[in-house]
Amino acid sequence: MSRRNKIYEGKAKVLFEGPEPGTIIQYFKDDATAFNNQKKGTLSGKGVINNIISEHIFKALGDIGIPTHFIERLSMREQLIKAVEIIPVEVIIRNIAAGGICARLGLEEGTPLPRPLVEFCYKSDELNDPLIAEEHILTFGWADELEIEEITHYALRVNDFLSGLFSGIGIKLVDFKLEFGRLYEGDDYATVLADEISPDGCRLWDSKTGEKLDKDRFRRDLGGEMEAYQEVARRLGILPSADVTEIADHIKKDS
Amino acid sequence: MSRRNKIYEGKAKVLFEGPEPGTIIQYFKDDATAFNNQKKGTLSGKGVINNIISEHIFKALGDIGIPTHFIERLSMREQLIKAVEIIPVEVIIRNIAAGGICARLGLEEGTPLPRPLVEFCYKSDELNDPLIAEEHILTFGWADELEIEEITHYALRVNDFLSGLFSGIGIKLVDFKLEFGRLYEGDDYATVLADEISPDGCRLWDSKTGEKLDKDRFRRDLGGEMEAYQEVARRLGILPSADVTEIADHIKKDS
Ligand SMILES: Nc1ncnc2c1ncn2[C@@H]1O[C@H](COP(=O)(O)OP(=O)(O)O)[C@@H](O)[C@H]1O
Ligand SMILES: Nc1ncnc2c1ncn2[C@@H]1O[C@H](COP(=O)(O)OP(=O)(O)O)[C@@H](O)[C@H]1O
Ligand SMILES: [Mg+2]
Ligand SMILES: [Mg+2]
Repeated sequence: MSRRNKIYEGKAKVLFEGPEPGTIIQYFKDDATAFNNQKKGTLSGKGVINNIISEHIFKALGDIGIPTHFIERLSMREQLIKAVEIIPVEVIIRNIAAGGICARLGLEEGTPLPRPLVEFCYKSDELNDPLIAEEHILTFGWADELEIEEITHYALRVNDFLSGLFSGIGIKLVDFKLEFGRLYEGDDYATVLADEISPDGCRLWDSKTGEKLDKDRFRRDLGGEMEAYQEVARRLGILPSADVTEIADHIKKDS
Repeated sequence: MSRRNKIYEGKAKVLFEGPEPGTIIQYFKDDATAFNNQKKGTLSGKGVINNIISEHIFKALGDIGIPTHFIERLSMREQLIKAVEIIPVEVIIRNIAAGGICARLGLEEGTPLPRPLVEFCYKSDELNDPLIAEEHILTFGWADELEIEEITHYALRVNDFLSGLFSGIGIKLVDFKLEFGRLYEGDDYATVLADEISPDGCRLWDSKTGEKLDKDRFRRDLGGEMEAYQEVARRLGILPSADVTEIADHIKKDS
């Protein structure tokens, strides 16, 4: 890692220049943040688990024809991705009311929504990722109409696929966050799924017990975060055989 | 007023049963509230001024073919309107950034927007009228796609007309709020403009001096609220000749 050029360090990941132009190495940290950075912590091994969960899901989404930035996983914490221009809109897909929407619209946590709800937030840490409408995206030029249409279409397809994937392993997909980017190819560009999909950005409830298997364990001080993340990986059939906490330590000594 | 059946008392108006089925008498109070009722006051004569300003504007909008609930003004504080089923969505049209949107999206007050922005809020005092997207309206069934289309179309036409009306009298129309309702006619219904249009729900800045001629004078403790409201009526050529404060007092003694 040492000789790589760091491009950006975010809350959960670091981006380094990739080996080829137009590529980036996405490094998954163990840092956990919530409530827009007001709560911070470290979950030992989280980066390793999120890297493999995200790899697994992005590959599967590629297989059903959803274009993504994913190229390949390089190591326990790193994956090679295509550099994109991130569209500054976080896309939240909700199947069941949980988290912020409950207070905002007066819904009880756990209420199934009449249909999947696709929300947009303006990606801005300073402004606390405020909810916006298509209208704001168009007015301020954050994306154009065609991109919003594509994003919404992909978001609903991802929701269908992931709802199926998780229901098959006894997990309810409550909601999740997606980011999209513009992949330039000459003068043209395509809208592709970017960033990550992991328990950091999803709400995942055990279908039988309702137990939370996601970042709400950290947000709400429930404990057992890593056990929950590992349980998701285990049910997906991708839990690494070595203890991820050890891997995490090993990597730390390395760098 | 005394023998009328009160249907609803709101923050700024009272609704009474009208003389015919399907009609309502809308009575304009002097009560002023802001920040969702946290700030309260009385602006002596405001109801009289808002009644005539709203009458003037609704008539003019009717003349350009926008369907409204307005029938006729009955007295200094009362107007006869068609009873509608209010669509629980407040429609805000913004030409210049001011108020809530500034903190929300990091804009400086006074910044012209790239194009008129049509925002929707869920009409709920308890929830503080939260911003929503079309997506929420459709998901929760607050209106259907056709209604949203009509509302947006009317809102932009009202904006064009009012921008012209006010610019002709040296006033910049910064933003304003509209409400729409369903007017039932047999089994069918039409979407019509309802509620009121007055300095209570508009931001109006003097074109030359930038002076605020609207409820922000009350919200921000600038004083001179009634002078500002009367100035708007005066420029519109509809200021009643009698002193509205006296009219207000007179009516109070009456009731
Ligand atoms: N393929 C990509 N190309 C460029 N940037 C990306 C790509 N995928 C994700 N990103 C961006 O990289 C950052 C990932 O790091 P993260 O820790 O999630 O940052 P943040 O704190 O900004 O959310 C995010 O800002 C994300 O938008
Ligand atoms: N034509 C109409 N038919 C029925 N209700 C109406 C009509 N026009 C306006 N209203 C409703 O009447 C009330 C007007 O009183 P107001 O003091 O503004 O109430 P609020 O405090 O709810 O905003 C509003 O709730 C508004 O939605
Ligand atoms: Mg992120
Ligand atoms: Mg009102």
